[in-house]
Amino acid sequence: MDQRIRDHAAVLVDWSAGVEDGDDVVVAVGEGAHDLGVAVLEKLGSVGANPVTTYDSEEMRRAFLRSHDGDFEATPAHELALYERADTILHLVGSRNTTALADVPPDARHAWPTAAVREAWLATDWVKTLHPTRARAQQAGMAYPAYEEFVYDAILRDWAALAEEMAALKDLLDAGSEVRLVTPDTHLTMSIEDRTAVTSAASITAGSANLPDGEVFTVPATAEGEIQFDVPMTHDGAPVRDVRLTLEDGAVVDWAAEVGERVLEDVLTVDEGARRLGEFGIGMNRGIDRYTNTILFDEKMGGTVHLAVGDAYSECLPEDEPGNQSAIHADLITDVTRDGSRLEIDGEVVQRNGLFRWEDDFEG
Amino acid sequence: MDQRIRDHAAVLVDWSAGVEDGDDVVVAVGEGAHDLGVAVLEKLGSVGANPVTTYDSEEMRRAFLRSHDGDFEATPAHELALYERADTILHLVGSRNTTALADVPPDARHAWPTAAVREAWLATDWVKTLHPTRARAQQAGMAYPAYEEFVYDAILRDWAALAEEMAALKDLLDAGSEVRLVTPDTHLTMSIEDRTAVTSAASITAGSANLPDGEVFTVPATAEGEIQFDVPMTHDGAPVRDVRLTLEDGAVVDWAAEVGERVLEDVLTVDEGARRLGEFGIGMNRGIDRYTNTILFDEKMGGTVHLAVGDAYSECLPEDEPGNQSAIHADLITDVTRDGSRLEIDGEVVQRNGLFRWEDDFEG
Repeated sequence: MDQRIRDHAAVLVDWSAGVEDGDDVVVAVGEGAHDLGVAVLEKLGSVGANPVTTYDSEEMRRAFLRSHDGDFEATPAHELALYERADTILHLVGSRNTTALADVPPDARHAWPTAAVREAWLATDWVKTLHPTRARAQQAGMAYPAYEEFVYDAILRDWAALAEEMAALKDLLDAGSEVRLVTPDTHLTMSIEDRTAVTSAASITAGSANLPDGEVFTVPATAEGEIQFDVPMTHDGAPVRDVRLTLEDGAVVDWAAEVGERVLEDVLTVDEGARRLGEFGIGMNRGIDRYTNTILFDEKMGGTVHLAVGDAYSECLPEDEPGNQSAIHADLITDVTRDGSRLEIDGEVVQRNGLFRWEDDFEG
Repeated sequence: MDQRIRDHAAVLVDWSAGVEDGDDVVVAVGEGAHDLGVAVLEKLGSVGANPVTTYDSEEMRRAFLRSHDGDFEATPAHELALYERADTILHLVGSRNTTALADVPPDARHAWPTAAVREAWLATDWVKTLHPTRARAQQAGMAYPAYEEFVYDAILRDWAALAEEMAALKDLLDAGSEVRLVTPDTHLTMSIEDRTAVTSAASITAGSANLPDGEVFTVPATAEGEIQFDVPMTHDGAPVRDVRLTLEDGAVVDWAAEVGERVLEDVLTVDEGARRLGEFGIGMNRGIDRYTNTILFDEKMGGTVHLAVGDAYSECLPEDEPGNQSAIHADLITDVTRDGSRLEIDGEVVQRNGLFRWEDDFEG
């Protein structure tokens, strides 16, 4: 076995999930993630955890959803019991075909697993990670060995060091009250008064985790200005490119997209909360050096920031504030490395042309 | 998808497991059984059942067992809850390498899953079936397309008709008190007084099921004579051939084997019950026309009978009789088609040279 797969499993089990002797763990193995599954089981054996391996097959989900009448059992007892009794879920994504569910209507895709099962899942310590497959390489437009290198560069990092760097940025955001984001085609001002930033360093010490990870995020109280999102993305299987939003008083009042404007419009009109911001995130993972059309990686890339329209993360909000609520939470990413880009907190430049002020070559 | 896979899924879900709308089902998918899994999920969707798919990977089990210290958690809460709440388990065996666990000590293999988990599994309506894989074809010494045909011939049968035929044989056994088995190298007399035969027609109406199936079995009260088992078998990965047993007063008093005599000796000396009989079974599946070194198929073959040493099936015994008890239950199969073979119940010939008396060409 490729040593990188074992290293991936070790980071996942030790750093990300902090699995200990006697923990009840569900390992959800994607269709193409068999090899990572083997490495994870080896690691769980050495830790002394109790694994149940489930098979997260897109082709089986497709077959089930297409033949079902759509009236799903709200609370399947065995499935609920599995997740309610689990301490940890390790979700090993590993598609063999990233469009395997293309002919399943989005409504059916979102209806199953049911809300109760998803809540039970989210209530565990869960970590989502990705095993590099040829299908994912294809989605990224990359050769397979190059994609493997890309994935392991993003995952096999010095997470403790990155966590410290993120803590420094969190301190600046927590102390600040206004963020300004400027690029050649963006001028956005956001209030972050009384907000608490969250550091995502690939560890469930923050409740749940992605691996790779590497962002600090908060929830803007309000926002004014215009922003161009130049990183391509896919929403529910449809491509969206070069989105431009105009915000007034915290709400999106005008929008356009070079590609996928109809998809964008569908997202923004889901409900009232879909036109307000649910997140402002700053990518800090320097192992991610290109866009691969996968949100798990793209939004963590150093030299990018992202905004989400829709549902807000409650952990960023003051206790007495419910925050923005919506059925959706859709991320949009912008490149902040181009000449003339800067991120300011209370008038002080924290990042310029993609470099943080504590990094080499930062121009003050 | 090959229509035979869909037909297999339909027999499994409808006839074997009798799954109904709202049933909580676990689908345990073997490494090479993906395609059957897809067909089963499609079928479960149309029935309206609630599936949880688990991944029954030999390579993951090997990795876990080899790295574990051997002190397994007796009652992992999430795993127990899953099986305790499940109505039905559909176990889709489908190895990619039938010797994937060759370097895991048998003790570790038998210790996990733990006894409590196995009991919870066995308490459900469970059905075990097999998806034809290249590894299974290789174990059978067959080309893959020929092996596929072999498997579907065994599985896609008129089970209702076979169930009727089995019921007729059961009636004869239940009414009888003595069975005599004769072949060119076997002379065995067994008492079956007060025993109740069980018909295994691939349906959980008998509690649990195999698919393929096709045997009627009972538990001998006592046995006298000599028997030669000429069907090759594999026990815990080791080949065993041409076993010869001598029985006196129901106990094995002498044994020999052309191949694997040491393995045979290990089996027979596990405990005292290991030298007494736990089963006498009569194969009735005419779709199985050759030995493939897989007990799921071999013991069901029409024209064979089998004996098991070790633990006895309680459903065959009178209520007040505990029956033979042992940690093992090892099947041995003998061919009864050779000229001079016959099966008698109370002196009446029920089968001669492999043909039942209700079959064409039976010579009375």
